[in-house]
Amino acid sequence: MIVVKVGGGANIDVDAVLQDAASLWKSGTPLVLVHGASDETNQLSERLGLPPRFVTSESGHVSRFTDAATLDAFAMASGKLNLRVVEKLQRLGANAVGLTGVDGRLLEGARKDAIRTVQDGKRIMLRGDFTGTIERVNTKLLRLLLDNGFLPVVTVPSISTAGEAVNADADRAAAAIAGALAATQLVILSNVPGLLRDVNDPTSLVARTTVAEAETLAQGRFKKKVLGAQEAFELGVREVVFATANRTEPVQAALNGGGTHLTST
Amino acid sequence: MIVVKVGGGANIDVDAVLQDAASLWKSGTPLVLVHGASDETNQLSERLGLPPRFVTSESGHVSRFTDAATLDAFAMASGKLNLRVVEKLQRLGANAVGLTGVDGRLLEGARKDAIRTVQDGKRIMLRGDFTGTIERVNTKLLRLLLDNGFLPVVTVPSISTAGEAVNADADRAAAAIAGALAATQLVILSNVPGLLRDVNDPTSLVARTTVAEAETLAQGRFKKKVLGAQEAFELGVREVVFATANRTEPVQAALNGGGTHLTST
Repeated sequence: MIVVKVGGGANIDVDAVLQDAASLWKSGTPLVLVHGASDETNQLSERLGLPPRFVTSESGHVSRFTDAATLDAFAMASGKLNLRVVEKLQRLGANAVGLTGVDGRLLEGARKDAIRTVQDGKRIMLRGDFTGTIERVNTKLLRLLLDNGFLPVVTVPSISTAGEAVNADADRAAAAIAGALAATQLVILSNVPGLLRDVNDPTSLVARTTVAEAETLAQGRFKKKVLGAQEAFELGVREVVFATANRTEPVQAALNGGGTHLTST
Repeated sequence: MIVVKVGGGANIDVDAVLQDAASLWKSGTPLVLVHGASDETNQLSERLGLPPRFVTSESGHVSRFTDAATLDAFAMASGKLNLRVVEKLQRLGANAVGLTGVDGRLLEGARKDAIRTVQDGKRIMLRGDFTGTIERVNTKLLRLLLDNGFLPVVTVPSISTAGEAVNADADRAAAAIAGALAATQLVILSNVPGLLRDVNDPTSLVARTTVAEAETLAQGRFKKKVLGAQEAFELGVREVVFATANRTEPVQAALNGGGTHLTST
């Protein structure tokens, strides 16, 4: 069992990932695909006159601030992308089924209504945020689909313990799913080759490392990916791979040694 | 087993339908909920500068013309609505799972790339339409969910035999599902009380009729609902009910004699 996360950013070749995922699925590898929708959401929000708003938490993590209208836009963008991903996988012969974290309460956790942010060096408390953490993966639905030959394609929103649709980090959603399903590997694909010793030097790729070292190397949005990896290890995942989506057979390349391979110790 | 379709038009009280569907589900009635998304799609299309385009076929049926951009808008609107419906059902204690017709190839049929239309009395062939008929319901996924205690919430798009996401009529999707699952009843809820002898007289409701008589009474978009009913009867559904969504317990009211009850003969 592997869990593959592909980012939803611009400049990501999702088609190569889908081809590879479909081949793996057809050759008998059970897998769950998780995708983000950040670029689609940004594009739609711009068209709707709702420019995206990113905030930085006290601990330095960058997140999207999600009011109700933004969550609607996010639901539209991720819904459309999920449909298009499932459509392509079906055309490639893989029996895909799209899910959000709200379906069967798949991805559940507390809503963080208020977030402490830092803006221009000042601490500011923002309220009305529809964002949540993922504390529990209700695997019944996923296992049912996997055991019956379907390929689950998961996207956030997730659901709060009070039953509200909330935005959540898709990397951490993938990590929680990998952990809950005791996946052997979690492959996180984006538009960079992996963790770099020097962020300005693409040849400084770290091929193997521990999560502790990765924490010191990670910058920007990679911090959340490492946090997700940490959570996945705590749940029993053996290996987390950060690799590029932008090559042929990106999933198999990552499984076969490409990118950065993280282990817990 | 009952199948409930609630329209996606403006002036439809979806919340009342969801409360009633959740009660029925919690009291042990297996059901599938199907919803349209026409009003959401119209609103989004307007906001995106894609005004909806309706065409009339030679046989007098009115349909939305769906180019690729319109299908994207439709996927966004129906995806968001599906998420919000599942979210509300979850909050009401029903373990809902949202599906499109593309998931597990649930709703499959030929794409009608070209449609013969009548515009100002002239016959015009329109191409590039992403619209399809539903010829097959792949019930495996639905049965799996129903047998394991989930409440499926289905929306179009459906999938073409060539694997393309296509728009399809949601009433006929509901009819095809009811037929494929051998549902006892198909309940189609909209913002009108049922079939009227005189469309301008709301007291002229037809309480019981046959599908043949209904064909002579149906006007406008009701023609497709009757066509769907006909298809459902051919597949073994016992009764089709057209009733209003806009009252308390609209599903139970329809099951208990409200609206127009159609039988095959």
